[in-house]
Amino acid sequence: MSTRKTGVWLIGALGSISSTVIIGALALRKGLTEPTGMVTATEAFRELALIDLNELVFGGCDIRSAKPSATVRQVLAMSDLSDQSGQQQIETEFEKTLDDVVRGTATNCGEAIQCLAAGSNAGACSLHEEISRIREALRTFKKKNSLNDIVVINLASTEPSLELRDCHRDLGAFESCLEQNRTDAVRASTLYAYAAVREGCPYINFTPSNGALLPAIIQLAESMGVPVMGNDGKTGETLVKSALAPMFTARNLRVLSWEGFNILGNMDGSILDHADNRAAKVKTKDQVLARILGYHPHSRVHIDYVPSLDDQKTAWDFIHFKGFMGAKMSLQFVWQGFDSMLAAPLILDLVRLAEFAKRRGERGVMPHLASFFKAPLGVDEFRLHEQHRLLLDYAKQAKRDRPAAASH
Amino acid sequence: MSTRKTGVWLIGALGSISSTVIIGALALRKGLTEPTGMVTATEAFRELALIDLNELVFGGCDIRSAKPSATVRQVLAMSDLSDQSGQQQIETEFEKTLDDVVRGTATNCGEAIQCLAAGSNAGACSLHEEISRIREALRTFKKKNSLNDIVVINLASTEPSLELRDCHRDLGAFESCLEQNRTDAVRASTLYAYAAVREGCPYINFTPSNGALLPAIIQLAESMGVPVMGNDGKTGETLVKSALAPMFTARNLRVLSWEGFNILGNMDGSILDHADNRAAKVKTKDQVLARILGYHPHSRVHIDYVPSLDDQKTAWDFIHFKGFMGAKMSLQFVWQGFDSMLAAPLILDLVRLAEFAKRRGERGVMPHLASFFKAPLGVDEFRLHEQHRLLLDYAKQAKRDRPAAASH
Amino acid sequence: MSTRKTGVWLIGALGSISSTVIIGALALRKGLTEPTGMVTATEAFRELALIDLNELVFGGCDIRSAKPSATVRQVLAMSDLSDQSGQQQIETEFEKTLDDVVRGTATNCGEAIQCLAAGSNAGACSLHEEISRIREALRTFKKKNSLNDIVVINLASTEPSLELRDCHRDLGAFESCLEQNRTDAVRASTLYAYAAVREGCPYINFTPSNGALLPAIIQLAESMGVPVMGNDGKTGETLVKSALAPMFTARNLRVLSWEGFNILGNMDGSILDHADNRAAKVKTKDQVLARILGYHPHSRVHIDYVPSLDDQKTAWDFIHFKGFMGAKMSLQFVWQGFDSMLAAPLILDLVRLAEFAKRRGERGVMPHLASFFKAPLGVDEFRLHEQHRLLLDYAKQAKRDRPAAASH
Amino acid sequence: MSTRKTGVWLIGALGSISSTVIIGALALRKGLTEPTGMVTATEAFRELALIDLNELVFGGCDIRSAKPSATVRQVLAMSDLSDQSGQQQIETEFEKTLDDVVRGTATNCGEAIQCLAAGSNAGACSLHEEISRIREALRTFKKKNSLNDIVVINLASTEPSLELRDCHRDLGAFESCLEQNRTDAVRASTLYAYAAVREGCPYINFTPSNGALLPAIIQLAESMGVPVMGNDGKTGETLVKSALAPMFTARNLRVLSWEGFNILGNMDGSILDHADNRAAKVKTKDQVLARILGYHPHSRVHIDYVPSLDDQKTAWDFIHFKGFMGAKMSLQFVWQGFDSMLAAPLILDLVRLAEFAKRRGERGVMPHLASFFKAPLGVDEFRLHEQHRLLLDYAKQAKRDRPAAASH
Repeated sequence: MSTRKTGVWLIGALGSISSTVIIGALALRKGLTEPTGMVTATEAFRELALIDLNELVFGGCDIRSAKPSATVRQVLAMSDLSDQSGQQQIETEFEKTLDDVVRGTATNCGEAIQCLAAGSNAGACSLHEEISRIREALRTFKKKNSLNDIVVINLASTEPSLELRDCHRDLGAFESCLEQNRTDAVRASTLYAYAAVREGCPYINFTPSNGALLPAIIQLAESMGVPVMGNDGKTGETLVKSALAPMFTARNLRVLSWEGFNILGNMDGSILDHADNRAAKVKTKDQVLARILGYHPHSRVHIDYVPSLDDQKTAWDFIHFKGFMGAKMSLQFVWQGFDSMLAAPLILDLVRLAEFAKRRGERGVMPHLASFFKAPLGVDEFRLHEQHRLLLDYAKQAKRDRPAAASH
Repeated sequence: MSTRKTGVWLIGALGSISSTVIIGALALRKGLTEPTGMVTATEAFRELALIDLNELVFGGCDIRSAKPSATVRQVLAMSDLSDQSGQQQIETEFEKTLDDVVRGTATNCGEAIQCLAAGSNAGACSLHEEISRIREALRTFKKKNSLNDIVVINLASTEPSLELRDCHRDLGAFESCLEQNRTDAVRASTLYAYAAVREGCPYINFTPSNGALLPAIIQLAESMGVPVMGNDGKTGETLVKSALAPMFTARNLRVLSWEGFNILGNMDGSILDHADNRAAKVKTKDQVLARILGYHPHSRVHIDYVPSLDDQKTAWDFIHFKGFMGAKMSLQFVWQGFDSMLAAPLILDLVRLAEFAKRRGERGVMPHLASFFKAPLGVDEFRLHEQHRLLLDYAKQAKRDRPAAASH
Repeated sequence: MSTRKTGVWLIGALGSISSTVIIGALALRKGLTEPTGMVTATEAFRELALIDLNELVFGGCDIRSAKPSATVRQVLAMSDLSDQSGQQQIETEFEKTLDDVVRGTATNCGEAIQCLAAGSNAGACSLHEEISRIREALRTFKKKNSLNDIVVINLASTEPSLELRDCHRDLGAFESCLEQNRTDAVRASTLYAYAAVREGCPYINFTPSNGALLPAIIQLAESMGVPVMGNDGKTGETLVKSALAPMFTARNLRVLSWEGFNILGNMDGSILDHADNRAAKVKTKDQVLARILGYHPHSRVHIDYVPSLDDQKTAWDFIHFKGFMGAKMSLQFVWQGFDSMLAAPLILDLVRLAEFAKRRGERGVMPHLASFFKAPLGVDEFRLHEQHRLLLDYAKQAKRDRPAAASH
Repeated sequence: MSTRKTGVWLIGALGSISSTVIIGALALRKGLTEPTGMVTATEAFRELALIDLNELVFGGCDIRSAKPSATVRQVLAMSDLSDQSGQQQIETEFEKTLDDVVRGTATNCGEAIQCLAAGSNAGACSLHEEISRIREALRTFKKKNSLNDIVVINLASTEPSLELRDCHRDLGAFESCLEQNRTDAVRASTLYAYAAVREGCPYINFTPSNGALLPAIIQLAESMGVPVMGNDGKTGETLVKSALAPMFTARNLRVLSWEGFNILGNMDGSILDHADNRAAKVKTKDQVLARILGYHPHSRVHIDYVPSLDDQKTAWDFIHFKGFMGAKMSLQFVWQGFDSMLAAPLILDLVRLAEFAKRRGERGVMPHLASFFKAPLGVDEFRLHEQHRLLLDYAKQAKRDRPAAASH
C-alpha cells in the first residue's frame, strides 16, 4: 500500500462539477464504474507513475454555506450506476467530505457572484488577511490529512474579466498592490492563485476568469518551482470546434460564418446570464476559431440560461462555408452533454498530471496540457489533434525519464 | 511558356462531377473564380512544380451518349460567378470538350448501370477487344492533343461489389482470365484500370467500385512504374466522420452508436438506390469508424435517393456516446453540400499529384493521398488529420528532392 | 367512496409501455406526480363523469414469463419523482400487480415475436381453445376483482401485416375460419380482439397490427354494443407530422420530399428490426402525409434499432418543399422523447374514454378518438388539430347528454 | 378583357421583398411559373372575384435612391425559372417599374434606418408637408395609371418601437399632434398609414413597426370605410411556431422552454442588428407562444445578422417540454427558407384580399387575415390552423354574398 497522499482543493467545492468529481472518484475507487472520459486512463499513460485515485483526498472552499441537497441523487441519475448499497456508501462518504469545506472569498467578484455569498463578509477584511486565511486553510488541510502535496483547482463561477495593467505583469508591482490593499486590482480567483502558489501548490484554472493566472503569478510559479495551467476547461462546443475547424483548413474550404448558440441550465448558466460574466466566457470561446483558421470568419457565440435544462448543455453551431467556385454549403451540429460529467474526468486528469509535473520538477505553465483548455496558456496551438499530440509526446518523454517515476 | 501538356481522361465524362471538373478548370483559367476547395492551391504546395491548370486537356468516355443539357447553367447556379460573357465562353469551350468523349464500356456492371447504356453493345465484344478499344482511345487522345502524359480518373457510377478471388491476386492468373474472356471476373472499372496502367497512365479510382484497383493490377502498376490510388473520394459525411471520430478517442469517450442517414438526388443517388450498388458504397463508408476508434460501435449508414435534392447531398449523423460514470450524451450533425462541388477540386488535386508522382518515378499505390479517400489503399490511417499530415510530409520531402522539380 | 371498478387488461403486460401505465397510475393516485400528458386531465373533460384512476384495476397477459427486472427504477429515472418512500410503495404494488399476469398467445405472430415466447406452447392448441382460454382469463380477472367492466388494450409487439381476404370482411365467414382452425387467417391480436368483444369488453388496438380490428370483428362489436378503436398510437414523429403537414397546405407550399429516420432502442425497436414487422409499422406511419396533403410527395420512413438509446426515441425528419417561383426550401426536425412516457398517458385516456363510451351505449368504432391514432379507423381526417376538435366536440356533446353522466 | 386596374404601392419599393413581389408577378403573368405559396391561388378562393394579377400595377417609394443592382438575377437564382428570353423580358419590365419609385420619408425612424437614407432631407419638412407629399404621390400614381384603387403595403425596415400614448388612441388628439408637428409622436410608418387611409387606400402593415396602425388611424379607417390590417408578416419561424405550439396543448404536454435563434443576411437582418429595431421585432415574435399555450414558458428569440446567408433565413428552435411523470423531452427544428420568397406571395394575397374587402364595403381591421400576421390586429387567435379557418370561413361567406362579386 502506498502511503503517498495528495490533496485536491476545490475552489467552488459545493458546485456541481466539484460534486461530480468527488462522487465519481468515490465510485471509481469502489469499482462501481469505468474511468470513461478520463484521458489518463488510456493506454498511453499506463506506465507513467501517475498518482492513483485511492491516494486523493478531497477538500476545498465555497462562498456558499448550504450543502447541495439531492446532489448525489442527481449525479447518479445521469450515470449508469445500479448498485444500491454502493450508492448509499457514496452518499455517506460524500457528505463527510463536504464537512471540511471552508468559507471562500468573493472579493471583487461582481454582483452576480457576490449575491450567492449571502451572509458572507465579502471584502470585510484586507487582501492580506484573505490571502493568509486561504494559506492557513491549505496548511490545515495538509496537516489534518497528512498530505504530501495539494493541487488547487478553480471551479468557481466565471468572474467578470479583469483588465490587465502593468501591475499585473510584474511580481514586485503586483505584491505592492496586495500590500496597498488595492481591491480593484484583484478578483477572488487572484487571491486563491497567489495563495496556492505561495504555498507551493500546483494551481489549475478550469474557469475563464482571467484574474487567476496573471503574468505576475506565473512568474512566482516559475521562481518557486510550482506548475500551473489554464484557462477555461474545454468540455463541449469548443471541443468540437477545435476538432472540426482544422477539417476546413485541410480541405481549403473557406469558413464564412460560424455561429454558436449555447443553452444551459445549471448555476454556471445562471451566472453567465449576467452580461459581465458572459463576456469573459465568450472571449475565451471565440478566439479558438481565428487561431485555427488563420482568418476571422463572421462568428458569434451566444450563451443563454435555460433553467429547465439543469446540467444538460445543448449547443447548436451553424457553419457556413464556401467551396469550389464559391458554392456555399453548411455544416450544423447539436451537442447535448451533461456539463459536470464532461468536466469531472478532466479535473481528475489535471490533478494527476499536475501532481506528476510537480514531482518531476516542472515549473510555470504546462503547455502539454493545452488540449484541456479553451485558452491554453503559453501555447499557440488550438487544434485539438495537435494539442493531443503534445500530451502524448510528453507522456512518451516522461516514460524515458526514469527518475521521476522511480521517486514515487 | 510551358509546352508540357497532361491529359485528364474522365471515365463517366458526361456525369455531373466530370462536368464540374471541366467547368471549374475553365473558370479558374480565366481567373473568374478562386481555387477554394483545392488542397494543392494551399501554401504547402506552392514551391512544388505541380502542373498548371492551363496545361490540362480534358477528355474521356461515357456509356451514355446524350450530352448533359443545361449542365453549365446548373453548375454556375451553385457558384458565385457573375461575369456573364465569361459564362458564355465557358459554355462554348465546355461543349467543345464534350465532342471528343468516346463510348465507354458497361461490361458486367449490373442492371442499374447497364440500363443507362441503352443502345450500347454492352458485352457484345470480348474482354480483349474492349481493352484494346480503351487503349486505342487513350493513344488517340494523347496523339491528337500532343500530350506528355494522361491521368485516368474513374468517376463512373458505383458498381456492385466484385468478390475477390485468387485470380485477382496474381497478375499472371488475372491475365489468363482476360484471355479466357472470363467476364464474371471483371467489371467495367477493371478493364479501364488495366488498360490505363498498360498504357502507362496513372489511374485514380474516385469510386467505391472495388473491381478497379485489384491486387493484380496494382502489381502491374508497380512493375510498369505507374502510380495509382483509390478508393472512393472522401467528400462529405465520411470526411466529417474522419475529423470527428478521433475527438472521442482523444477524450476517452466511448462511442455507443453512430447512425448516418444520407439523402441525395443526383445520378449517383439514383444508382445507389439499387441495393447491390448501395452495398458497395456503404461498405467503404462504414469501415472508417471502427478503424479510427479501435472497436465497433453500433453503426449503420443509410443512403436514400431523394430526387428533389438534385446535387445537394444532406447527411444527418447521430452519435451516441458514453462519458464519465456511464452518462449517455449525443452529438448530431447535418451536412449540406453540393456533391460535385465537393468532389471536383479534389479531382484536380489528384490529377496534379498523380502526374507529379509519375514524373518523380513513383510506382504503385500512393499512400500520401490517403486523405482524399474513404478506403485508402495501402494505408492503415483513417484519421483525417493524420492523413493530411502524410500529405504535408510528402510535400516537404518532395521540395527537398530537387531533380523532379528541375525536370519540369 | 365509489364502488364502481374497471379492469384494464393489458396485452403485453410485461412490456415497457404497460409498466409505465401501471407505475404512472400508482404515482398519480398517491399524488406524487401531475397528470401531464393525459388529454382527459384537461379542462374540457372536467365535467364528464369519466372514471377515476382510483377505480382502475390492472391486469393482463404476456407471452414472456420473466418479470421485467429493474423496470420501476428505469421508469422513475426518466421521471421527476423524488419521494423515496413513495417510490418503494410503488415498487411493491407494481410487483403485486404483475403476479396476476397470465400467459399470452403468440399464434402465427412471425419469428421475431415467437422467439420471445420461448418455452410457450405457441400454436399447440386449436384457435378455439386459445380463444376460450383468453375469455376465461378475462372472466377470472373480472370476478376476482369484482369489476363492472374491463377495457382490453393491445400493447404487444407489432406483428407482420395480415393480408385481408374475404373471410375477414364477414363475421360468418370469419367464424367459420376459426372453427376450421385456419391459423393462417389470424394472428395473436385477432384472437384477443375476438375474445374481448365476445366478452363485451371494449378493445383498443394501440399497435399497428392490422390483424386485430378486422372488419368482421368490428361487425361483431357493433352487433354486441361494444366500442372499439385503433390503430397504432400516435406518440412521436407521426404526431409532429400531423401537426406540421397542414401548415404547408394552408400556405400552398408544395412538399417535394418528406424523409423520416427513426432510431429507438427498446423491445419495440428490436422487433421492428425485423423486415416483416417493420413493414407493418411503416405502412401506418407513411399514409398520414398523403392523406393530409392530397398528393404523394417523395417519402420514406426508416426505423432503425439502436440499442444504446433504450426507451429514448429519436427521429430526424427532413422536409423539402417548394415555394414561390419554385424556390426550394427545407424544414428539419429532431424529436427526442421517451417512447413509454409518451404512450402511457394516452392509454389511460383511452381506457377512460372507452369505458365512458360503453356506459353511454356507443358501439363499434369511436371516430372521436382519431387524434390518438396513426391510422384511425372509420375516419378520413388525419390533421391533428381537426382530429382534436372531433374529441372536443364529442366532450361538449356528452356534457349535454345527461343520462350517461347521471348513471355513474 | 377587364379594364379594372389596381395599384400596389410598396413602401420600401427597392428592397428585396418588393423586388420579389414585382418579379414574381411578372413571371406569373407570363406563365413562366406556378402560383405556389399564394394562398389565394388555392381552390377555396377560385370562385371569389379576386382581382387578377394582370390587373395590378406596381409602384411605391423608398428612402434609398440607388436601384438594386443584380436583383433580378438574384431572385431568379433562387427560382426554378429556366426560360432565358422570358427572364430578359422580366428584367426589362422590372427596371421600368422602378423608374416611377418616388423618394420616401425616414421621419423619426432611428439611426439604423436613417443612415440608409443618405442624402435625403429626413425631417427637413414638417409632418404636414410630408403627409401631403405622400398623398400627392398616391394621387399621381393613380392618375398616371388610370387606377380604380390603390393598396398600400408597408415593407420598409423595422422601426424602433413607438411608445403608445393617449394622443395615439384618439383621432382628434392625434391630428392635433400632426398639426403641432410633434415629430416624436410619429414614425415614418405613421405618416404613410395616415396618408393612405386619408386617400381611401387600404393599408397593410407587413412589418412589426407599431407606429403604423395606431388606434387613431384605425378609427379613421373605420370612419372612412377603408380596410386595414397588420402587423408583421408571418413567414418563417413564427409560422412554424403557430403550427406546432397547439400540438403541445392538444396533448397536455407542458412546454418548459422554447428558445429560438434566427440568423439571416439581407438588409432586414442588417437593420435588425441594431438593438432598438430588433427589440420591436422580437416583441411581435415572442407573444405568440404565451397566447397559444395560455402560460409563459421560458422563451427568448434571438436574431443575428450573418451576411454570408444573404436572403436565406435559418432558424433553430429548441423546445423543451415535460410529459408524463415529469419526463423531460425535446423537439428541435431548423427552418431554412428564402425570406423574400416566403413573403412575396403573401403580399400578393393581401393585395387581392384587401382590394376585395374594399369593394365589399368592409372597413377597419380585417380579422380574417390573421393567419398572415405574427401580431394580428383585432384577433385573439394565434393558432395557425384556427386562423386559417377564419380565412376559409370568410371565403365561404363571401361566395354566398353575391353583390360584391357581381360588382366586379
